[in-house]
Amino acid sequence: MSSAPATRIRDRIAALRERFDPVGISALLVTHPANVFYLSNFRGSAGMLLVTDTRATLVVDARYATAAAVLLDGPGGCPGLDLALVESSYEQTIVACVGQLDWSPGVDRLGIEVTHMTVAQHEWLTQALTASSVTLRPTSDLVEEARSVKDPDELSILRDAGRRISSVMAEALQGLRPGRSEREVAADIDRTIVRAGFDRPAFETIVAAGSNTALPHARPGRRVLEPGHLVLLDFGGALDGYCVDLTRVASLGPPDDDARAWHAAVRSAHAAALAVVRPGVAAVEVDTAARRAITERGFGHAFTHGTGHGLGIEVHEAPRIGKRREPSDALADVPLRVGMVFTVEPGVYLPSCGGIRLEDDLLVTETGYELLTDVPLDLHVV
Amino acid sequence: MSSAPATRIRDRIAALRERFDPVGISALLVTHPANVFYLSNFRGSAGMLLVTDTRATLVVDARYATAAAVLLDGPGGCPGLDLALVESSYEQTIVACVGQLDWSPGVDRLGIEVTHMTVAQHEWLTQALTASSVTLRPTSDLVEEARSVKDPDELSILRDAGRRISSVMAEALQGLRPGRSEREVAADIDRTIVRAGFDRPAFETIVAAGSNTALPHARPGRRVLEPGHLVLLDFGGALDGYCVDLTRVASLGPPDDDARAWHAAVRSAHAAALAVVRPGVAAVEVDTAARRAITERGFGHAFTHGTGHGLGIEVHEAPRIGKRREPSDALADVPLRVGMVFTVEPGVYLPSCGGIRLEDDLLVTETGYELLTDVPLDLHVV
Repeated sequence: MSSAPATRIRDRIAALRERFDPVGISALLVTHPANVFYLSNFRGSAGMLLVTDTRATLVVDARYATAAAVLLDGPGGCPGLDLALVESSYEQTIVACVGQLDWSPGVDRLGIEVTHMTVAQHEWLTQALTASSVTLRPTSDLVEEARSVKDPDELSILRDAGRRISSVMAEALQGLRPGRSEREVAADIDRTIVRAGFDRPAFETIVAAGSNTALPHARPGRRVLEPGHLVLLDFGGALDGYCVDLTRVASLGPPDDDARAWHAAVRSAHAAALAVVRPGVAAVEVDTAARRAITERGFGHAFTHGTGHGLGIEVHEAPRIGKRREPSDALADVPLRVGMVFTVEPGVYLPSCGGIRLEDDLLVTETGYELLTDVPLDLHVV
Repeated sequence: MSSAPATRIRDRIAALRERFDPVGISALLVTHPANVFYLSNFRGSAGMLLVTDTRATLVVDARYATAAAVLLDGPGGCPGLDLALVESSYEQTIVACVGQLDWSPGVDRLGIEVTHMTVAQHEWLTQALTASSVTLRPTSDLVEEARSVKDPDELSILRDAGRRISSVMAEALQGLRPGRSEREVAADIDRTIVRAGFDRPAFETIVAAGSNTALPHARPGRRVLEPGHLVLLDFGGALDGYCVDLTRVASLGPPDDDARAWHAAVRSAHAAALAVVRPGVAAVEVDTAARRAITERGFGHAFTHGTGHGLGIEVHEAPRIGKRREPSDALADVPLRVGMVFTVEPGVYLPSCGGIRLEDDLLVTETGYELLTDVPLDLHVV
C-alpha cells in the first residue's frame, strides 16, 4: 500500500499552518481520521494529530503503536512528525501533549474540528484545560477544504482507481444472469474489486433488482434476478486510501418503455451536468443543470437526491454537488477549482416500480473536465 | 433481512422512557445510528429518532423515504412510530418536529446523546431552539446500556450468527495455502461470509502472515503466505444487523518454539478469562484474569489491548472488557448481567516477530457463560 511522499506530507502540513492565522488559532487538534491520514499517512480507526506552528504529533493507541512507528520511519515518514502513545485515553494524552508545548500569550488558541468532535470530548477537554492558558476555538473544514483540491500524488491514484473500477463494472455487467440473488452478485463484485487491486470496496456494494432499483440506497438482499428485471449496480473501490464510485443499470432482456424513458431522462441529466463543469462555476450549477434536464422530461419529482459528491479519502467529501439548501448556502456557491474530483450521478426513482441512476467520477481541469471512469452509459441489455 | 417484531420495538421504547425521569429529561433525540436501529428497525447511514413520552418520530432524508415507509408499514412497523422527511437538513427537521410538540413547563428538557452528537450539531440546535422553551440536556449511554443486555430476539440471531461464523472459520483455515496473498485470502473469506448467509462482513477482515501477525489491527496486503508462516485470521459477519467476531491462528507447517510459547500463553489467558465469567462479576475481572495468566507466562508486556468488547448491533459496544483506566472507572466496574454478549480475545504481539490472538464470543448465563462460537483453540497446523 503506497503512501504519499514525506515531502508531500510536509507541504500539506505547511499549507494547513498558513490557515491558522486567518481563523485565529495557533494550533489545530485534528480528530477526523480522514484528515489525520491526509496529514500523516496514518490510517487507523483511531488516532489524532496535534499540529502546532513548529511540530506535528501523531497520537495513537497501543494497537497501532508498531504500525505508526514503522510508518514514521518509512518512506512516508516525515521529519518533524512525532509519535505519542495513548496511556489511558486519547483525551488525556492530548492534554499531556498540550502541556508540553510552549503556549505564549497570544498563541494559546487550540483549534478543534467541530464537525468531528463530540460534545462529550469537547466537555472533557474544556474541563481538563481549565488550569492551563490554552483555550479551545471552533474551526470547521480547514483540512477538508484543502483536501477538496487534489495534488498530483492523489490524482495519479484516482486516475488509476477510475480505470480499475471501470473494468470491474464491465466484468460485473457481463456476469449478470437470472437466478442469482442480489447478495451473490454483490459478493462476486466485491471479490472482483479486490482482484482488480483495490484495498477494499469503498462502501457496501449496491445490487438492486426489479422494484428494488427504486431505493437509492438499497442493500443487496435475497431477491433473485429474473428475466425482465432492471438491475442497478453501484459500487466503489478504495485504492491506497482513495475512493472511486460508479453506477450503471442493466436490463435482463429488452427494457420496457418506462425503463427507457427513465434512462433517457437520467442520461440527458448526466450530459447536462457534465456540460457545465469548468473552473469558476458554482457547485450548485452542476446540480441545477441535471435537475433541469430531468424535470424537462417529466421526472423532476423522482430525482430525490443531489447530483454528486466529492471523492477522495472519503467516499463523500467536499465539494457537495447538490441543491441550494437555504438562501445563503456557502457550500452550494463553492466555485469549482482545477483538481476537484467528484461524482455526477443523477437518478430517478418511482417507488414500488423501479429506478435508474448513472454515475461517473470526474476531475475538474483548466478547460472543463476529465472523466476518471469509462463505461458506456447505455442501459446494458444482458 | 428480518426485523425485530413490532412488540419488541414497543418494549424497547417503553424501557427507554422509564429512564427519562431518573436522568431528568422529558424526551430524547437519538442520533447514533445503532441506537436508531435498535429502537425502530431502521438502518441507514443517516436517520434520527425523536422519542417523547407519547410519540416516537423517525426522521430520514429522501434517500431513505421509501425504505422507511415500507419498514413502518411492515411486520417491524410500530404503531406510534411516525415518519418525518428531511426537507433541507436533519437539524432543521428536528427543530420543526420539536416545535410541533407540547412542551409544558417542567417537561421541556430534550436529552441529546453527547457521545454521538458533534459540537457543530449541538451549537446549531442550541441556537435554533433559543426562542423555544426547550433546553438541551446531556445524556450518555442511555440506549447503549439497554442494548448491552440482549433480548430473546437478539440472542436467537446471535446464536445463529455464532454457528455460521464458526463454519466460515473452519473453511477458511482449511483453505490456507502458501503462495496466496493476504488480500486474496481475505477476499475469499469475505465471499464465504456472504455465502454463509451474513448480510456482510462485520468489519474489514484481517489476514496477517508472518511478522504481520505482530500488528493487532493489520490490514491484509500483498504479502504472500510462505511455509513456516503464522497466519492470523480475524473476521466477523453481520446477520440481520447483529455482529459476531472470531479469531484463530494457523501455522503453515510445524510452528517453532516461540510460536508454541505464545500460543500456550494466550490459550491459558483465554481459559482464565472464561473461568471467571458469571453474573455479578465486574467486567474488569475478566481482563484481570486473562492478563494475569499471560503475565505468569512472561508475556504481560506483549498483551497490548483489552481482553474483549461487547457485541451486538455494533462490533464494539458495551460492556468493555478491559483494564481499569483510572481509579474511578465506572465501565470497568460494570457487573456482568445475564444476556450480555462479548468477546474474549487475549493476544500477544512481539513487534517485527509475530503474534497470536484467540477470540471467541460468549453469552453470560445464570450459571456462567455459553460460547456462541465453536472452533478448536489449537494452533491449526496446515
